[in-house]
Amino acid sequence: MTAARAAGGPVGARPVMLAVGGDSGSGKTTLARGLAEAIGPRRCTSICVDDYHRYDRAQRSALRLTALSPQANHLDIMEQHLQLLAIGQPILKPVYDHRRGTFARPEYLRPRPFVIVEGLFPLFSKLSRACFDVTVFVDPPEELRHRWKIRRDTTGRGYTEAEVRRELARREPDSAAYIRPQRRFADIVVRFAPAQDGSDPPGAPSTAELLLRPTVQHPPLASLLADGAGAAMDLGVVRDDDGNAVDRLRVHGRAAPEDARLPARALWEVVGRGREIPRGLGRLADGAHSEPLAITQEMLLFHLMQEVYQR
Amino acid sequence: MTAARAAGGPVGARPVMLAVGGDSGSGKTTLARGLAEAIGPRRCTSICVDDYHRYDRAQRSALRLTALSPQANHLDIMEQHLQLLAIGQPILKPVYDHRRGTFARPEYLRPRPFVIVEGLFPLFSKLSRACFDVTVFVDPPEELRHRWKIRRDTTGRGYTEAEVRRELARREPDSAAYIRPQRRFADIVVRFAPAQDGSDPPGAPSTAELLLRPTVQHPPLASLLADGAGAAMDLGVVRDDDGNAVDRLRVHGRAAPEDARLPARALWEVVGRGREIPRGLGRLADGAHSEPLAITQEMLLFHLMQEVYQR
Repeated sequence: MTAARAAGGPVGARPVMLAVGGDSGSGKTTLARGLAEAIGPRRCTSICVDDYHRYDRAQRSALRLTALSPQANHLDIMEQHLQLLAIGQPILKPVYDHRRGTFARPEYLRPRPFVIVEGLFPLFSKLSRACFDVTVFVDPPEELRHRWKIRRDTTGRGYTEAEVRRELARREPDSAAYIRPQRRFADIVVRFAPAQDGSDPPGAPSTAELLLRPTVQHPPLASLLADGAGAAMDLGVVRDDDGNAVDRLRVHGRAAPEDARLPARALWEVVGRGREIPRGLGRLADGAHSEPLAITQEMLLFHLMQEVYQR
Repeated sequence: MTAARAAGGPVGARPVMLAVGGDSGSGKTTLARGLAEAIGPRRCTSICVDDYHRYDRAQRSALRLTALSPQANHLDIMEQHLQLLAIGQPILKPVYDHRRGTFARPEYLRPRPFVIVEGLFPLFSKLSRACFDVTVFVDPPEELRHRWKIRRDTTGRGYTEAEVRRELARREPDSAAYIRPQRRFADIVVRFAPAQDGSDPPGAPSTAELLLRPTVQHPPLASLLADGAGAAMDLGVVRDDDGNAVDRLRVHGRAAPEDARLPARALWEVVGRGREIPRGLGRLADGAHSEPLAITQEMLLFHLMQEVYQR
């Protein structure tokens, strides 16, 4: 047979793809989980792309590589899998057991109409960024991220606090070199943090700061604010770290619940088209509710739905 | 970012792809190994595609599935990986540990100019067959295959003979339903067996019978035979199991070494273009030499080289 090759194969329906990038412990999963719940499990595939390790933990340690080094990962295969998902094809994703530090049975994944991809590297290369319709980078202050990572890894993954701190220090150079630079490629940068002026009352949820880059078309925020959302949020232009002017939406953690609910509902009228606000929106890792998180998730749902309406 | 997708990515050079299909223990590896050695490790990638199991051994056993059932395998992913290799792309191949019956670290494989794929299913679907330039099915008499499989699995894989026989019986329905039907899609069907008329002297290597289908262009065998190769081989037309007329080349195990070497050398003049005959050709699993195997491998090398010359 002279090479009658099938170069592509049958192409499935193209899903809407969202990337949630950010360092380890930055709150990617908390952000993505509420979104997936809002979309519904039958229409949404959630994937973590941190399992493309070239080595198991013992080998990585012997080679003095961290999991954040591109050399320690098959990033070309991660790209290939993102491309396959983007054209509606299934993948056989490697599975790394984070407790044992070894590999397990790979996972067969077929993309549903919405695909949420979280991980350390989804915005690392041009090829992988090109697979997404909307890209987000989660960027909490480092001190807060360390606190979150320590909480997660000491409760869920069996490490001591001292071990997690040592690991954070060991990873810092790779984090600075490979993870944080991905921030500049996101359509939306999300930062959860207490208000810088200390105006948050004790126990209030973190304030959400969203940098809204002009690479996607954002919802009509000015009209929301004109309709009385000003007590819970504000919109301004700031100069980003890279020197560029950018829109910044702040959703204040200190807002009274009734004030915070107002923009959440108004935004949901644009996004939800008559449906109820899904319960999972705004749910924190500890089960508590955060209106700033809910509004952030609504913003992302807005973009995902836009993609559907525009096709 | 509005979906600026990269549907394919950069395409590598297309390798020449050979499929060696056949049931478990049919001699695929023995045939493929000499070929890979002749081509040279830097120009050849050898892959076994029997690791796309959907379940580990315990799960498969609980579901009463054999490894030969398409339901027990991610054959769509095997196809996808063959397609990727055929366009010069790397794959992350799952790895199944045949001793333990569980999964291990997946293997990163980048196709070299020649890719030899052996396995149970490479000729199973139209899509996977389309990835190959030359396809072979190894088809020894069942009795001989059972003997070979028992020898391999009791020495290399830690089973008892009774266990292997039980497993062979359990697999027989799937073998008949899914594996043996692939025979009809091969360009060349290879059968090693003692001569049917009992004319082989004791200790002689098996006779090779090659069905040469007209789906590829075979070397000028008639002129080889006219040049005195007739003591070692014969060429005839037979009616295949499916009722079609087909060329059959027999290379006799009983031939005296000097007679057998004649066609091997003559064929090598066509294939090797001045190089020495590689040592690995004709090497059996136990290290002994078989001229019929060497000539079979030369026939396959002829086809692989043809593909290169024709491009």
